[in-house]
Amino acid sequence: MTENTEEIYDVIIIGGGPAGATAAIYAARSNLKVGILDKGLTTGALGTTNKIANYPGFDGEIVGAELLQIMRKQAISYGAEFINDKAIGTDLSSKTKMVFGNLGVYSARSIIVASGSMGRSNLIKGEEKLLGRGVSYCAVCDAAFFKGKDVAVIGKSDEAVEEALYLTRFAKTVHFFAPSNQIKVGEEELEELRETENVVMHTGVIKEIYGQDKVEGVRYLDRENGSGDQSVSVEGVFVYLQGAKPITDFLQGQLEIRDEGCIKVDRENQTSTPGVYAVGDVTCTYVKQAIIAAGDGAIAAVAAEKWLRGKTKVAVDWA
Amino acid sequence: MTENTEEIYDVIIIGGGPAGATAAIYAARSNLKVGILDKGLTTGALGTTNKIANYPGFDGEIVGAELLQIMRKQAISYGAEFINDKAIGTDLSSKTKMVFGNLGVYSARSIIVASGSMGRSNLIKGEEKLLGRGVSYCAVCDAAFFKGKDVAVIGKSDEAVEEALYLTRFAKTVHFFAPSNQIKVGEEELEELRETENVVMHTGVIKEIYGQDKVEGVRYLDRENGSGDQSVSVEGVFVYLQGAKPITDFLQGQLEIRDEGCIKVDRENQTSTPGVYAVGDVTCTYVKQAIIAAGDGAIAAVAAEKWLRGKTKVAVDWA
Repeated sequence: MTENTEEIYDVIIIGGGPAGATAAIYAARSNLKVGILDKGLTTGALGTTNKIANYPGFDGEIVGAELLQIMRKQAISYGAEFINDKAIGTDLSSKTKMVFGNLGVYSARSIIVASGSMGRSNLIKGEEKLLGRGVSYCAVCDAAFFKGKDVAVIGKSDEAVEEALYLTRFAKTVHFFAPSNQIKVGEEELEELRETENVVMHTGVIKEIYGQDKVEGVRYLDRENGSGDQSVSVEGVFVYLQGAKPITDFLQGQLEIRDEGCIKVDRENQTSTPGVYAVGDVTCTYVKQAIIAAGDGAIAAVAAEKWLRGKTKVAVDWA
Repeated sequence: MTENTEEIYDVIIIGGGPAGATAAIYAARSNLKVGILDKGLTTGALGTTNKIANYPGFDGEIVGAELLQIMRKQAISYGAEFINDKAIGTDLSSKTKMVFGNLGVYSARSIIVASGSMGRSNLIKGEEKLLGRGVSYCAVCDAAFFKGKDVAVIGKSDEAVEEALYLTRFAKTVHFFAPSNQIKVGEEELEELRETENVVMHTGVIKEIYGQDKVEGVRYLDRENGSGDQSVSVEGVFVYLQGAKPITDFLQGQLEIRDEGCIKVDRENQTSTPGVYAVGDVTCTYVKQAIIAAGDGAIAAVAAEKWLRGKTKVAVDWA
């Protein structure tokens, strides 16, 4: 299939996290010529996860980057090519689509966007150092590690409140810090949080997450009570500042994006442009989990393979 | 949460394949009281798979039942309870839902249906014996094992034609057997199959898949040419007779089912009945893959947990 088009990939996958790596496994195993643009093993959400305990098939904990490394080895064993480059632009308008990287231009007949989502640029002091050592962005992933312990939740979104409520069922005390008075949530939900027995509401602004090898507490400025710097001892800090933004800047508006910033896809994970798919945390998924992203990757790769064969619709016949 | 309702589960999961086991991992890890009704490790589609090579996280091949066993151990380690029983009926109309098994009645506040899909009752002679030894129901899963080899495809559905076309890119020759003249596919697709160089179309009826330890060939009766029993040597046989029917009989029409027989779900995998979810091959998924089923299971478990906490809508806030 690829002999006359040596420089054109069948599929370029943008991003090598669990969604992109799984898409690569499936696409490469279907004999497609697959390139994966990736910024490195330990850059994305899974790659920076210190331990993951809920990926089905691994009993006990595994380091995120190790799990990802196995997925990549699988993809490579089927012929997928990892390219260490960062996508900075695309042209999806022609039959042959193009991805512009820092180091080169890549052409492909179909594209799978698996660029994930991103933290903030303004980190709290200590946040990066203690990430995976008590600092987490996902209660569903990590709450179980904090049974009977004190934790802090920092954020002002619905997601922050949701995750704090989730944590109340595990942690001894949940200290909730809203970084400004304008919390972006309905009063009803906030009320629920206030009324929960093991929640302490704070009005202060977090200045630092401190700890030697793991989180020991947070230091904050209590503006409202004008009492200067204070601190509270916690073993976990869940940060939901600005949420996690889908990384779509390099698409320059070429795909339909929902108001929330995520890429709109159909049930085959196809975007508004035929032959272009999106998978994992860059889509409008409401749970960011490696296993869900991986499932997405498989769906898109199968759909892309059929699309490349000239099938516009996948037929299902249970008869 | 469960202290006053010792005999009522938070979630009963019907089926312990990759979808059900993953739902159990996530639900149990959320501190829910989880029961999984299951007919045994080696009954479902994954449990009867001799080798799986495309599950992300396992480089190389793994026996399906082994992968499933790990998932179950994970779920059990978080407190999920496997119950060796078969669901034969349900009552989903009340707040406390009931599942009737052969051995008992199980009550739960929410239900996740993960009953999978089923082969046929009328097997071809030799099909069961050689399942996983050359007999397969899934080209996407197994085509790569038959590079340069001769295979047979048996079926009369769109799926059979699709899978045969997929196999033409791997196999040396694809022998396509439609068990009756009334093939249930559009002429256009059949034409594509007929025109593919390495496809041989047969009108005969398969009588037997033969082979000692692995598939060696198929024996068939060529009615059209009236030439009696014939045989063709192949190393793989892909069977798509009657497709794979979603197992929904025990629901007795209590959930909305599409014409194709699969359970209709929304993007949180909730069925037409609030608090009742469906995941994996029993839903209207067009690709039956363990990784996709597992992703489904995680989505439904997170949704069920929020639903049980009285949240009807899951809030997403990227701000």
